[in-house]
Amino acid sequence: MSYFSSIPAIRYEGTGSENPLAFRHYDPTKLVLGKSMAEHLRLATCYWHTFVWPGSDVFGAGTFERPWQQAGEPMAKAREKADAAFDFFSRLGTPYYTFHDTDVAPEGNSIAEYKNNFAAMVDVLEKKQAETGVKLLWGTANVFSNPRYAAGAATNPQPEVFAYAATQVRHAMEATHRLGGANYVLWGGREGYDTLLNTDLKRERAQLGRFFQMVVEHKHKIGFKGTILIEPKPQEPTKHQYDYDTATVYGFLKDFGLENEVKTNLEANHATLAGHSFHHEVATSIALGLFGSIDANRGDPQNGWDTDQFPNSVEELTLVVYEIVKAGGFTTGGFNFDTKVRRQSSAPEDLFHGHIGAIDALALSLERAAKMIERDALADFKAKRYAGWDADFGSKILSGGYTLASLADEALSRDLHPKHVSGGQELLENIVNRYIYG
Amino acid sequence: MSYFSSIPAIRYEGTGSENPLAFRHYDPTKLVLGKSMAEHLRLATCYWHTFVWPGSDVFGAGTFERPWQQAGEPMAKAREKADAAFDFFSRLGTPYYTFHDTDVAPEGNSIAEYKNNFAAMVDVLEKKQAETGVKLLWGTANVFSNPRYAAGAATNPQPEVFAYAATQVRHAMEATHRLGGANYVLWGGREGYDTLLNTDLKRERAQLGRFFQMVVEHKHKIGFKGTILIEPKPQEPTKHQYDYDTATVYGFLKDFGLENEVKTNLEANHATLAGHSFHHEVATSIALGLFGSIDANRGDPQNGWDTDQFPNSVEELTLVVYEIVKAGGFTTGGFNFDTKVRRQSSAPEDLFHGHIGAIDALALSLERAAKMIERDALADFKAKRYAGWDADFGSKILSGGYTLASLADEALSRDLHPKHVSGGQELLENIVNRYIYG
Amino acid sequence: MSYFSSIPAIRYEGTGSENPLAFRHYDPTKLVLGKSMAEHLRLATCYWHTFVWPGSDVFGAGTFERPWQQAGEPMAKAREKADAAFDFFSRLGTPYYTFHDTDVAPEGNSIAEYKNNFAAMVDVLEKKQAETGVKLLWGTANVFSNPRYAAGAATNPQPEVFAYAATQVRHAMEATHRLGGANYVLWGGREGYDTLLNTDLKRERAQLGRFFQMVVEHKHKIGFKGTILIEPKPQEPTKHQYDYDTATVYGFLKDFGLENEVKTNLEANHATLAGHSFHHEVATSIALGLFGSIDANRGDPQNGWDTDQFPNSVEELTLVVYEIVKAGGFTTGGFNFDTKVRRQSSAPEDLFHGHIGAIDALALSLERAAKMIERDALADFKAKRYAGWDADFGSKILSGGYTLASLADEALSRDLHPKHVSGGQELLENIVNRYIYG
Amino acid sequence: MSYFSSIPAIRYEGTGSENPLAFRHYDPTKLVLGKSMAEHLRLATCYWHTFVWPGSDVFGAGTFERPWQQAGEPMAKAREKADAAFDFFSRLGTPYYTFHDTDVAPEGNSIAEYKNNFAAMVDVLEKKQAETGVKLLWGTANVFSNPRYAAGAATNPQPEVFAYAATQVRHAMEATHRLGGANYVLWGGREGYDTLLNTDLKRERAQLGRFFQMVVEHKHKIGFKGTILIEPKPQEPTKHQYDYDTATVYGFLKDFGLENEVKTNLEANHATLAGHSFHHEVATSIALGLFGSIDANRGDPQNGWDTDQFPNSVEELTLVVYEIVKAGGFTTGGFNFDTKVRRQSSAPEDLFHGHIGAIDALALSLERAAKMIERDALADFKAKRYAGWDADFGSKILSGGYTLASLADEALSRDLHPKHVSGGQELLENIVNRYIYG
Repeated sequence: MSYFSSIPAIRYEGTGSENPLAFRHYDPTKLVLGKSMAEHLRLATCYWHTFVWPGSDVFGAGTFERPWQQAGEPMAKAREKADAAFDFFSRLGTPYYTFHDTDVAPEGNSIAEYKNNFAAMVDVLEKKQAETGVKLLWGTANVFSNPRYAAGAATNPQPEVFAYAATQVRHAMEATHRLGGANYVLWGGREGYDTLLNTDLKRERAQLGRFFQMVVEHKHKIGFKGTILIEPKPQEPTKHQYDYDTATVYGFLKDFGLENEVKTNLEANHATLAGHSFHHEVATSIALGLFGSIDANRGDPQNGWDTDQFPNSVEELTLVVYEIVKAGGFTTGGFNFDTKVRRQSSAPEDLFHGHIGAIDALALSLERAAKMIERDALADFKAKRYAGWDADFGSKILSGGYTLASLADEALSRDLHPKHVSGGQELLENIVNRYIYG
Repeated sequence: MSYFSSIPAIRYEGTGSENPLAFRHYDPTKLVLGKSMAEHLRLATCYWHTFVWPGSDVFGAGTFERPWQQAGEPMAKAREKADAAFDFFSRLGTPYYTFHDTDVAPEGNSIAEYKNNFAAMVDVLEKKQAETGVKLLWGTANVFSNPRYAAGAATNPQPEVFAYAATQVRHAMEATHRLGGANYVLWGGREGYDTLLNTDLKRERAQLGRFFQMVVEHKHKIGFKGTILIEPKPQEPTKHQYDYDTATVYGFLKDFGLENEVKTNLEANHATLAGHSFHHEVATSIALGLFGSIDANRGDPQNGWDTDQFPNSVEELTLVVYEIVKAGGFTTGGFNFDTKVRRQSSAPEDLFHGHIGAIDALALSLERAAKMIERDALADFKAKRYAGWDADFGSKILSGGYTLASLADEALSRDLHPKHVSGGQELLENIVNRYIYG
Repeated sequence: MSYFSSIPAIRYEGTGSENPLAFRHYDPTKLVLGKSMAEHLRLATCYWHTFVWPGSDVFGAGTFERPWQQAGEPMAKAREKADAAFDFFSRLGTPYYTFHDTDVAPEGNSIAEYKNNFAAMVDVLEKKQAETGVKLLWGTANVFSNPRYAAGAATNPQPEVFAYAATQVRHAMEATHRLGGANYVLWGGREGYDTLLNTDLKRERAQLGRFFQMVVEHKHKIGFKGTILIEPKPQEPTKHQYDYDTATVYGFLKDFGLENEVKTNLEANHATLAGHSFHHEVATSIALGLFGSIDANRGDPQNGWDTDQFPNSVEELTLVVYEIVKAGGFTTGGFNFDTKVRRQSSAPEDLFHGHIGAIDALALSLERAAKMIERDALADFKAKRYAGWDADFGSKILSGGYTLASLADEALSRDLHPKHVSGGQELLENIVNRYIYG
Repeated sequence: MSYFSSIPAIRYEGTGSENPLAFRHYDPTKLVLGKSMAEHLRLATCYWHTFVWPGSDVFGAGTFERPWQQAGEPMAKAREKADAAFDFFSRLGTPYYTFHDTDVAPEGNSIAEYKNNFAAMVDVLEKKQAETGVKLLWGTANVFSNPRYAAGAATNPQPEVFAYAATQVRHAMEATHRLGGANYVLWGGREGYDTLLNTDLKRERAQLGRFFQMVVEHKHKIGFKGTILIEPKPQEPTKHQYDYDTATVYGFLKDFGLENEVKTNLEANHATLAGHSFHHEVATSIALGLFGSIDANRGDPQNGWDTDQFPNSVEELTLVVYEIVKAGGFTTGGFNFDTKVRRQSSAPEDLFHGHIGAIDALALSLERAAKMIERDALADFKAKRYAGWDADFGSKILSGGYTLASLADEALSRDLHPKHVSGGQELLENIVNRYIYG
């Protein structure tokens, strides 16, 4: 019998419902700005936190006691986990899922075992996808948990470790391709340093650049049409990670000629650990042409580690969805719940509560954001604020019509006396709240 | 009579001295690795914190009551300030100084007044330099304090403000050139945003890019041979500043074709506000070919704002000096004390105590770093750690000799089983302490 | 003519209104849980940020150019400021205001001048209160801005400074009493240290304890019936402030026998600087019997200093108002807007936008919180969660019915095997969002 | 054969030695201020990080592969671990060790098993102590790792969990007593909350208070003469822990009448996570009469979690040791290395490198601190700075000789004009560096 057998399929019941196992705002077929909610949000559930993590933390053992996490023959347990996972996806109704290679298959004791185990499980996943209609948002390779990766994968001081990682990434990419995945993700979990005393930054950067180039070349070679995504994170478990934030990734990609090949997979909690708002990282990725996908979660504002909580702030998410929808919405990306229930939330239904609340928060945010876009007071304000740059003087400056000297001469001859004007921040904050709270 | 008349010229007296107004470690003529301490460190005192700031903070009025800060005819007070400043430089013995245009001259009520006041004061500075032998490390323009710059200078929504800033920067550059300055600094004090709600990131980025290009073009036009420096800072007074850190600046420069034209002026306290160690920012700038100069100070590890305290941690500075000297040392840059005495440190001698302690800390760090370089245990460790990348397999990978698939095939056929090895962090930390503490 | 003459009196117009200068949610007479919104919220506007601060920051001059901040005869300007302030209070419709002594009167050049100036301005305030009906929520003394307080007031190394501060506090208390103030606030703006190297913690603690005792004794002597409040803050401008947070204040008050005499005035931004959520500080103050009043503002989650922004997160405020109303609501306290518009928000109407948005956010939060209380799902959950402590075993433990040994014996003899149960965090978060978003 | 058989006993070889497996500064018998280094520092190695932790982190499996951590019969492995631990203690030469009950014995599947396993291992420890001469600095109980403690131990919503924890603490206390332990430690690893939504702060506080009272009562009943210590920590793994910092603990202890019964066990990394310097927490504990013992480690200034690194900053530790020695030194406490090698430091000798570097850093700090005390420039400065409080006026204020009104009257009649004087921070910082760097 299914671990989740007591849980009904989750349905949209509207705000009148008091059923905690129903959506109150997320109606997948509801049209918003001409597209269904499901098409806008492209929701995905992750294998990693939801089916692999046992509820442990640095000071305590796992609390979840899922049947598939008990001792047993590894491949049999992997199949049992896949059964539970697709049962969960189906009951919850998220159209996509995401995985690391070693989430779905035992890594084995050699490369050959790894390859065989993974291949066998990809067959299982393919069948499960066909049976349930659940699709793959992205796949990835876990090249950070095994002790061999303690000093990094692509940036490891040993080229053999680079080669081992390349093997996993190759197979994870090909599996993603075969399973119809929309994207392939690179997360530099240990691509960074614990101490500068033993680290050659320049060398490790070159290794990472070559690795990414090989990934992009392989994508084209195998004809994978999805997007290669990189997920910035500033630190943890390393002291410092090389893909710190969007701006850092941008410089890195430009250095290796990859800025048109790779997009960002942004995570809310990684943004805040890097000292940015989630809104900032999304807006920056859009401004730099790098926006790809979202790992939707949140951190705890008082805790300095990656808590990966379910996102539930409509106030924060509305601005994020507003930016994304204004920029044209997701192409291959989506909102993936890279989220874990709290360690105390050990009941099977807690997995549903976490996702349901997050999905409703996104649905609410989408509705609020759509209203913001329909009558875009922020855009109007900005248009007025920057109007001078669309007029002659501003355009001439931007298009190279002045040197520093000729501009200074003109400023002097015109005796310019520009005066600061209000930025209207409080007014705009009130307007946003008007959209959110009616 | 001079404000500092009670203070003798500061001399090197060695560690036997108990005179708080003497150097115990900084002997400018002492040779270290073949260069004098003075040549290595290229010490500079700043006008800004030392002669302009009155000892105020957000909750309190100025405590310093310097004579030149009292009410009076602006140009007369500016001359009085210059007298005090050069008297201080001379007594302290730092060979360089640094200034913002409006530190040295009253900004006046129009561009014309600004230009005239500044020109008159540049004459004064030129004479002072000749009299004292003190040289200019860098000049810069203050395009952030005047209310007109409340919404930024180059990134201001009004092109007229951009033009005003261009005027100041032009004159500050030309003054720097005339005064023999070794560098010209750009600090984006208000180039950022207070709220994304009213901000067009893409547009402001384009404005900033054009501004920097104009600056570089002007440098070449006037024949200035010094270095253009940009000083990263993540926030404060803005919520978010565009030149967040070195990695961000790198991507920005590449975008506008300026990565070979502009270097970084790194500040310790800005590094830590950005979530990095000072060591990280220096090592990263060096690895990216961007290293230029240092604003030597420190933050308070428990306070989240720019405290600009005098640097005094030999433990931190030794690693920083080690990186710099290993990378060839300063070319045009130097250690500028962008530092302020605490608000309670209101006595004239406190200005000396702050600088003397910082200079001695740098001198100690230089000596320790020189020992680290003479017998470079860290370099030896790294050479072994990365040896595989210098051997055939690693070289072939890096030079493009493998595709992802061919490398994976080889890993499989060789049945690679790489094993993690110790990174030796504690050992290396002990070795560093051995250099520092003998 | 009034500075605010172009601004109409702010009225409740409901959510149908698009007038940015109207309340959409705050209807002062609307009944919520049997009391009017006005009675629940007890809104106050502060003199300090709103009429005294010129829009300066650490890197820039004031941008606001209020007429009463221009040069002029100090007492005349103070009267002009009072006119503007009460005009603003009346147009905005906040029933209370708050002030520091030196906000309302020039501090003069001697104690006698201070006393006389302040007395004269208290007469003015008394008349203004009578004319407008605006009441005093609390008064306080500014014993941190003048250079004499650079090293603290009560904790100053010089007893003469303690005496000067005592003089100000005495007069500010008596003025508060005379003006019918509901509370008197102590903020330890410089009661802390910049460095431990020159600080005697034990001695300064004793000074502060004696000062507070004197304040409480004086309260009783003059028959002031209001509440003495202390406002915790962890740092800024000092490195470390003695009234770090509620828990610290509690220990301090118990030490000096004042825990029944003094309550907390909690500020959102101070809570977050101390590493706590605002919710935490409110809930802790309530749990410790210390809750008094609120300085309603917010910080910026990415900035490490006191930004004192207008509160606008209904998500955060709903939980805060829920705790307060559940605990019986304010007695003498209220929501004081210790908030400042951004430095760029230099137009007179910006002062209104800031307050209007904050007031509407509080009104919305009150309505949401009232619904949470009417059908208190959180309380129900907690009642079940802790039920064991109300039953025999738990009660016996708490009431001292067991020793460690007898309890261990019983655990062994009963072979206890307690099992963790779900804490339901995600479910509860969803329920809260249901209250907030319907 | 011993896991550490390749490592010789660590000896003092002085600064001339280049042997990384020798002390260069720690000479246990060297006299400093009349006591041996060993007596001053009372060094302890912990079982927990050093023999129990497998080198795992939140993103990766254990890298250490210690023989006693492999699969096997639990009691046999526990004995093997004890052999390795005491072998390590003996080779390293730290005179003390520390443990949690479940570090040394398998917790079993019932209370009875726990009791029996632990009792059997206490016999082993007793014998090991006798054989090696290694003494117990403190014992404690792990009441946070088992899933039953997911919602806390004493503060658990289920009284049965409280009872289970009481059982462990009783046995751990009695074992500590029998083994001659100098202290018993309480760490509230999960005494806090993950969300306020399901938490009754007042109730949990009462539970915790009763628990501590029971512990103190039991101490007296069994005649344990050691000190009960509480170890403050602000967060992690919980969102918020009840024993946040020293000041919080102080208020808590006073509330339950325990301020003379319990002292603090301060950890450097917990101090910094709480927003304080380590120096601050030590100085505050001393000022409040709570100072007990030290968990000597350090955090990473850029990472927001408990990294528990080996302490190696002589600059930081010198000030800490200065405070402790000035206050009379440890009585029952000591420096316990609650530290872990980095996950990459997987070689057996890395455990030695970590401890050796930390011990040498403490020895250096002790020597520097002794010089600071012998000629105590900081104390001299403070004596002058606060002199007014020792004179008539200050004494009279502190001893209650003035009311607020009489003091204000005197200030007015004497026309007090106190003037700020320099706090000398930079001078004092220079003096400290003079002690540290000669």
